[in-house]
Amino acid sequence: MTTALRSDALRALYADWADILATTPGLTTRLSRSIFDEWHQPTREPEDVTYREDVVGGVPGIWTLPLGADPSQVLLYTHGGGFAVGSAASHRKLAAHVAKALGATAFVLDYRRAPEHPHPAQVEDGVAAFAALRDRGITDITTIGDSAGGNLAVAIPLALREQGLPLPTRIIAFSPWLDMENSGATLVTNDASDALITVPLLEGMIAGVLAEGRIDPRTPLANPLHADLTGLPPLYVNAGAVEALVDNATRLADTARAAGVDVTLSVVDGMQHVFPCMAGNAPEADAEIAALATWYLGGSR
Amino acid sequence: MTTALRSDALRALYADWADILATTPGLTTRLSRSIFDEWHQPTREPEDVTYREDVVGGVPGIWTLPLGADPSQVLLYTHGGGFAVGSAASHRKLAAHVAKALGATAFVLDYRRAPEHPHPAQVEDGVAAFAALRDRGITDITTIGDSAGGNLAVAIPLALREQGLPLPTRIIAFSPWLDMENSGATLVTNDASDALITVPLLEGMIAGVLAEGRIDPRTPLANPLHADLTGLPPLYVNAGAVEALVDNATRLADTARAAGVDVTLSVVDGMQHVFPCMAGNAPEADAEIAALATWYLGGSR
Repeated sequence: MTTALRSDALRALYADWADILATTPGLTTRLSRSIFDEWHQPTREPEDVTYREDVVGGVPGIWTLPLGADPSQVLLYTHGGGFAVGSAASHRKLAAHVAKALGATAFVLDYRRAPEHPHPAQVEDGVAAFAALRDRGITDITTIGDSAGGNLAVAIPLALREQGLPLPTRIIAFSPWLDMENSGATLVTNDASDALITVPLLEGMIAGVLAEGRIDPRTPLANPLHADLTGLPPLYVNAGAVEALVDNATRLADTARAAGVDVTLSVVDGMQHVFPCMAGNAPEADAEIAALATWYLGGSR
Repeated sequence: MTTALRSDALRALYADWADILATTPGLTTRLSRSIFDEWHQPTREPEDVTYREDVVGGVPGIWTLPLGADPSQVLLYTHGGGFAVGSAASHRKLAAHVAKALGATAFVLDYRRAPEHPHPAQVEDGVAAFAALRDRGITDITTIGDSAGGNLAVAIPLALREQGLPLPTRIIAFSPWLDMENSGATLVTNDASDALITVPLLEGMIAGVLAEGRIDPRTPLANPLHADLTGLPPLYVNAGAVEALVDNATRLADTARAAGVDVTLSVVDGMQHVFPCMAGNAPEADAEIAALATWYLGGSR
């Protein structure tokens, strides 16, 4: 397969999902979870990584353990999927690629999902896992996630700060989805180029996580664009330039910088939502993860 | 979770799939593949195993590489799913558990699937991968698979024999599905106890792999119950006692024994189709894989 075709694999998968979403009447949350678990497909199996299931702070998940990785450095990974779909299984390989590049281990959470469990269940699970990792003696913890899990990677430290608990050493957000008011300009301007994300799709997921409107979409822990980000650790945030949610990433970067946070922003031309999930298969994804590793390793010196 | 509940996880998943199959009008092959890829869910991530994608003899797949395993012993794994669904991804963990217990590596094939590719595409892919492994200098190859892939684990050696090529050293078939005439007595007698398999479900899959009736259901390479099994290597075959396809396993064992093959048959009380896929989670699956390892290691001495 040529490089261009490999880099297009995620767009093609998203277009297929969008077609299914548009043409399957009454698609259940159950079946949506089945479909979105295919999110692992664009990611190549990373070599030299082992896995272990565990329950950390009451939250099940999968450890990704690159051979030779430093067990004292943990990436607490929260997967994407609108708080409703996706799983540790769908994001195992992506987390493993990132952990391997960073020389760390990762624990990919199977946090409670909406709509059965609306906000703040997801944040609570992340806080519980974080606290349990600290109880295991791990002090170098990075919160990291993609899409809705990128939101959680920011919200979990905010909740920790509220509770007077230690913070992560870094935050990484891939294509974070933050704006629960569903108001970003790029929802309109990138509507044609984004293969998956639409305003109605997000509306459905917002209804699920915000309990059918009973939770205010400006709640800071549900929508960190409305949070005071002061005191957060260094933040790496990225997005694809053609995605409808790119201005979630740029607004997060702006808001965090205004609050004095050390921010690194990466917006990559032509890329779709959560493009690092093409790790091992597309050069853009591998280059992004390499850039992330440079940031991570530089910051830890 | 109690032991009984853990051992019931596969029945519960199958019952859920059966409900979806019964209540989703016009379920496409595309969506069926999404659902059946959940076959990995009952299987625990095995520890101390790494993975590597590869293309062997033109056929893509996933190597499962237990730490310390003997690379000169390869399990050529063909996954189940009626020749139409399932994948290397859905069976990666099961193959890894087996490989680890046997001290071997496994290559899980993503063979071409029906109905786009009817018989004998699946057998051809298996033969091509087997020949390519031989070309890489690997001589100790076991063909192994479950359900439709258990059929292929027998049909591939038969095709190799026809072509005058070297045979595998052993054959392993978990809950093999062989009878393309859809005529087994246990389809009726175990209809109530089998949570997934029904005559109409099998009819649909037979239509796919046998090109809508254009291929005879007694074709030996499509239905090894009609093959001369003389000269096949030692065969390990199992099934769950409550499954509708249990008499595929027992008829294969009888037919092979009558042809002089060294056969070991294991039928486990209360178990559903392909129950070893609960490896790491249910004691019946772990005991079965331990018994398989005793057979495998004894045979290799």
